[in-house]
Amino acid sequence: MTSHSFQHRHLLGIENLSTDDILTILNLADRFLEISERPIKKVPTLRGKTVINFFMEASTRTRTSFEIAGKRLSADVINVSSSGSSISKGETLLDTAMNLNAMKPDVIVIRHSSSGAAQFVSQYVDCSVINAGDGMHEHPTQALLDCGTIRKHKGRIEGLTVAIVGDVAHSRVARSNIHALRKLGAQVRVAGPMTLMPVGIESMGVKVFYRVEDALKDADVVIVLRLQKERQEDGLIPNTREYSRYFGINSSRLQLAKPDAIVMHPGPINRGVELASDVADGTRSVILDQVTQGIAVRMAALYLVAGPTSEEHDAR
Amino acid sequence: MTSHSFQHRHLLGIENLSTDDILTILNLADRFLEISERPIKKVPTLRGKTVINFFMEASTRTRTSFEIAGKRLSADVINVSSSGSSISKGETLLDTAMNLNAMKPDVIVIRHSSSGAAQFVSQYVDCSVINAGDGMHEHPTQALLDCGTIRKHKGRIEGLTVAIVGDVAHSRVARSNIHALRKLGAQVRVAGPMTLMPVGIESMGVKVFYRVEDALKDADVVIVLRLQKERQEDGLIPNTREYSRYFGINSSRLQLAKPDAIVMHPGPINRGVELASDVADGTRSVILDQVTQGIAVRMAALYLVAGPTSEEHDAR
Amino acid sequence: MTSHSFQHRHLLGIENLSTDDILTILNLADRFLEISERPIKKVPTLRGKTVINFFMEASTRTRTSFEIAGKRLSADVINVSSSGSSISKGETLLDTAMNLNAMKPDVIVIRHSSSGAAQFVSQYVDCSVINAGDGMHEHPTQALLDCGTIRKHKGRIEGLTVAIVGDVAHSRVARSNIHALRKLGAQVRVAGPMTLMPVGIESMGVKVFYRVEDALKDADVVIVLRLQKERQEDGLIPNTREYSRYFGINSSRLQLAKPDAIVMHPGPINRGVELASDVADGTRSVILDQVTQGIAVRMAALYLVAGPTSEEHDAR
Repeated sequence: MTSHSFQHRHLLGIENLSTDDILTILNLADRFLEISERPIKKVPTLRGKTVINFFMEASTRTRTSFEIAGKRLSADVINVSSSGSSISKGETLLDTAMNLNAMKPDVIVIRHSSSGAAQFVSQYVDCSVINAGDGMHEHPTQALLDCGTIRKHKGRIEGLTVAIVGDVAHSRVARSNIHALRKLGAQVRVAGPMTLMPVGIESMGVKVFYRVEDALKDADVVIVLRLQKERQEDGLIPNTREYSRYFGINSSRLQLAKPDAIVMHPGPINRGVELASDVADGTRSVILDQVTQGIAVRMAALYLVAGPTSEEHDAR
Repeated sequence: MTSHSFQHRHLLGIENLSTDDILTILNLADRFLEISERPIKKVPTLRGKTVINFFMEASTRTRTSFEIAGKRLSADVINVSSSGSSISKGETLLDTAMNLNAMKPDVIVIRHSSSGAAQFVSQYVDCSVINAGDGMHEHPTQALLDCGTIRKHKGRIEGLTVAIVGDVAHSRVARSNIHALRKLGAQVRVAGPMTLMPVGIESMGVKVFYRVEDALKDADVVIVLRLQKERQEDGLIPNTREYSRYFGINSSRLQLAKPDAIVMHPGPINRGVELASDVADGTRSVILDQVTQGIAVRMAALYLVAGPTSEEHDAR
Repeated sequence: MTSHSFQHRHLLGIENLSTDDILTILNLADRFLEISERPIKKVPTLRGKTVINFFMEASTRTRTSFEIAGKRLSADVINVSSSGSSISKGETLLDTAMNLNAMKPDVIVIRHSSSGAAQFVSQYVDCSVINAGDGMHEHPTQALLDCGTIRKHKGRIEGLTVAIVGDVAHSRVARSNIHALRKLGAQVRVAGPMTLMPVGIESMGVKVFYRVEDALKDADVVIVLRLQKERQEDGLIPNTREYSRYFGINSSRLQLAKPDAIVMHPGPINRGVELASDVADGTRSVILDQVTQGIAVRMAALYLVAGPTSEEHDAR
């Protein structure tokens, strides 16, 4: 795994990756996927590397996924979260980040509620930065694991029709997926209530639908977005029942998609709101495959930004 | 440590273990006990295995004990707790567990406030599950470490008289201990106020006492249960002082037990409530031995559910 | 790194260290500093040792620093913090500490809001104790990293004039630094409002100033203390703006110090309160060097209290 074409120090978003970059990550992830199936799920690749999981927003799955990914590569993984952190003592994001940087990590994995936080931090630190979700901007490893999951189940991404359904406006998952899927040659549709659809989203190369049925028609892949309950308080949806009635993905609506369409969700699921339980647990759901893929994609991301350089290899 | 008779994939409770199973764990724990005394407290046994400490109830000692146990066996240990977890985003227990399972751990150690949670999760996941306490049901590793501690100090368990004192009704520790001690041949007495004694407890093969003095008489072992302060708010005890007066274990009451009786407590102690400080810190207290034994028992439990199988050994 | 003159089992404070002890730690830290610059930032020195980070006060940087230090020495590091700990169930500090001790750690790193907590715990446990800050008493590793940073930038400490500015009364950082700097031969000045200056501080061998300008004059080093916002609520300062006006370190005040004076701060900084942003980010600031030094000093401290003894070396 020593030579690859990935030339970025950071993984900040999908937007600035080339199609080749994306494929490099997906191909490497495919090879890492197997490690998690072994009795001994560990390779020494990142031994002696320090990965800081810097999570300023609550998250189980993403933090845990990066932690397991790092440890399976033998990195030292250190979790830093907002509770109990200096941030609560009024320190700025940059000061906290520079402090962590001064501890000489190899990678800072950052999740933050502000769009652009990862990019901002990356301009100052010496280490690599991986964006684990920044506000409503990007969540690149989520899109990569989604693409990996699609490729695994469909054999390809080019030419597929992918429907992304729900709160597109507030979704970094949608944004990163649109970039990734478009670069890989899929046709992307987005569907949701007008109040949850960002103005000008068409410019990202997607087709917009305000009736979910139209978006689902003959789709190969349905990506269901999580509906934040706060949207109701914000007045953007009448209530979750109403939302579910018009945009929830249930088995009858899913009939409109191709017979072999797969259903995805970034989790955690609001069962009965954006996704009916029988679909979530049904044969077309690949939601748990996404989680498994997540470990492999994050191993690939950590490897590509922090793995041994060719010089290090030569020195051995 | 390659061959043993333990055939369970999970450790969910003591009730479904055979006497042989219990002895297998205790004997293995005795061998692991020594590792924690070495200058280099680490063996490579579980290298490359992933243990997720999934704690949905606050706990220092049990979580820390499993974490240290896992690390001394060279496993990768990942902590997931309720604060900052998806659970607070409304995800179901099963969804969270299945997500963790999809990350391909070898073991999920679970603590949860609902009785049956560990059993429930174990029916769905591919990995092993160790119950670290589920509601008022079972806390098997606590009972095992208690038995290990008794055996160390008394040389045997068969034929001993063990008095369990306190809030038996709400105690998973009591329940697991009754199962374990009965299977190992001890006579078990339980004592506590009527309001804290479960109906039909006699059917578990114990003698019930409502005067603690009667239960203590000639006992070899006294297991003092923690009194949750909430019991007062529940109206189950008048107040903690009153409780202490009638059921607290102090040095004068302890005179009723055998001269060489030992005193145990699962911790954390409410000093002056269920246990007087001079007893907790006295020569008969083996409370800190229990903690040391806990590491060894948890190493044994992790090893038995996740250790190398004979096929893996053969393959080496 | 096998022979050294450091004979203490614990690191509780600077007050009870000799000048030789301090130099031993600083010299060892200098050697460890290089490890964090390597591609493979890890040495096997403390493999199989257990370090418990027992933090009863919120802290990002100190906890993270000790965790990284321990992991770069290959120790197993376990974090125990107040949230989710038995302490919140009413357990005493000593009971929690003795429980941790019974898990056979090699080192307990303790941070606690009570002065004397580390010393207290050290009298009971079998393992080594490192004080990571106890109330208003001492924070020895902070002083050591400060001294290391000064020595790196100034080449020496003897004969330097060091001004410590701010809330001296409530600062364990000030107290530990005064001890360390005096033992190493520096002249130490303290400056701050009368309400934040402890009575009798002169007996520690420092000069007291109530006008910060007088303290800064010809200083080689300026250590700016963090101002806790609570001081305003306590009525000890009128408000933070007023404090800043009279005691804040800004570039015009810094002109009074030597032209090559360096500025330090233990972090987290209240920008615009005790320290102006242009100074914090300016060429004289060595604040981030302090953080880097912190890892090295904590590696040295962990090594000296828990590293291989000469017998262990002989046995190999």
